[in-house]
Amino acid sequence: MSPETVTVHGMSTSGNCHKVRLLLEQLGRPYRWIEVDSANGGTRTPAYLAKNPNGKVPMLERADGGVLVESNAILCWLAEGSPYLPDDAWQRALALSWLFFEQYSHEPYIAVARFIRGWTPLDSPRRADLPRLVERGAQALAVMEKHLQAAAWFTGNDYGVADIALFAYTHCADDGGFDLVAYPCITDWLARVRAQPGFVPMPGVSDDVAARLASS
Amino acid sequence: MSPETVTVHGMSTSGNCHKVRLLLEQLGRPYRWIEVDSANGGTRTPAYLAKNPNGKVPMLERADGGVLVESNAILCWLAEGSPYLPDDAWQRALALSWLFFEQYSHEPYIAVARFIRGWTPLDSPRRADLPRLVERGAQALAVMEKHLQAAAWFTGNDYGVADIALFAYTHCADDGGFDLVAYPCITDWLARVRAQPGFVPMPGVSDDVAARLASS
Repeated sequence: MSPETVTVHGMSTSGNCHKVRLLLEQLGRPYRWIEVDSANGGTRTPAYLAKNPNGKVPMLERADGGVLVESNAILCWLAEGSPYLPDDAWQRALALSWLFFEQYSHEPYIAVARFIRGWTPLDSPRRADLPRLVERGAQALAVMEKHLQAAAWFTGNDYGVADIALFAYTHCADDGGFDLVAYPCITDWLARVRAQPGFVPMPGVSDDVAARLASS
Repeated sequence: MSPETVTVHGMSTSGNCHKVRLLLEQLGRPYRWIEVDSANGGTRTPAYLAKNPNGKVPMLERADGGVLVESNAILCWLAEGSPYLPDDAWQRALALSWLFFEQYSHEPYIAVARFIRGWTPLDSPRRADLPRLVERGAQALAVMEKHLQAAAWFTGNDYGVADIALFAYTHCADDGGFDLVAYPCITDWLARVRAQPGFVPMPGVSDDVAARLASS
């Protein structure tokens, strides 16, 4: 039986959304992608909020209308039974631990710094937050670097969901004002992720976002 | 075979730590609790950071030295094979989705508002963040309220890990400056959680914290 075709509502240049696309591509699973401009209110329409009251992307929708939100929960569901999610309960728990680390200690700093620099006006008051975000994001990168000094991956002994989740915003951390040269193990790990079968890069940002990132 | 006795490093008045205690009590599983004063540097000692470089509680330690961090990953591991974690992959994914919601959209506002009001000096500059935290925390409570208008629990059809995780800081949201009277479905759900077999309340805060909460 071929796997069910799922629908993903996502913004292609969002790391959280790219996680889902990357795993679907690596699984070779059929999917339909509906582009949502979440930076400009696309997740705040009544139709969207009816499906996801928390108003965020990505959102996965099944043929029977079932809806799953939260990028890392989507990764776990899609990876179930595949090599991208460990079978062993302890190894799976360790992978989950990195998924929660990503959402609590990494994304709120590294992804948010990128968003502020790329998607808010150059005179936005939110830019005053950047020094604090860069300080906290650097702490997250240091935790990752330490782990990678003794391990090749974040998902047990192999590449998997936690690597996909952490790759999402680490690979474009420079957009947030981070310099990965200071993290040689992370740099090597990024290259290993990019060499995985079925890897697809995250689509590039629009010209106006690129210009803001260059000016920040 | 009796289950392995695990060691939990935690601060008893932290909701994230209480999640782990509550589930262990409900599972009737033996455990050792090591109190860590994370509000006063207990997670920043070299010995602690050697085990958890991210410097947070709770931390679960096994007899063989294996360490698991992130409260919600600990819940999933402990609940594996019990009624507190659904067997069905889709139901489990939905529970995971609430666990990620809790850590991304709920705890950073509701728990952090409580921490600032109870554990920082009355003249702390961090108190300037409170209006924003209360606004965002109220959005999280609204998402929960909406879910509970159509469902009894957050973990599939039954009480489980996602209820434990969301109970942790929702039940003491008033410490953060939230009034739960505005959320009748949440209020009813809190009562249902408290009525679960093996329920144990979170230990009370110290007198000085209580005094700050009363003055905030």
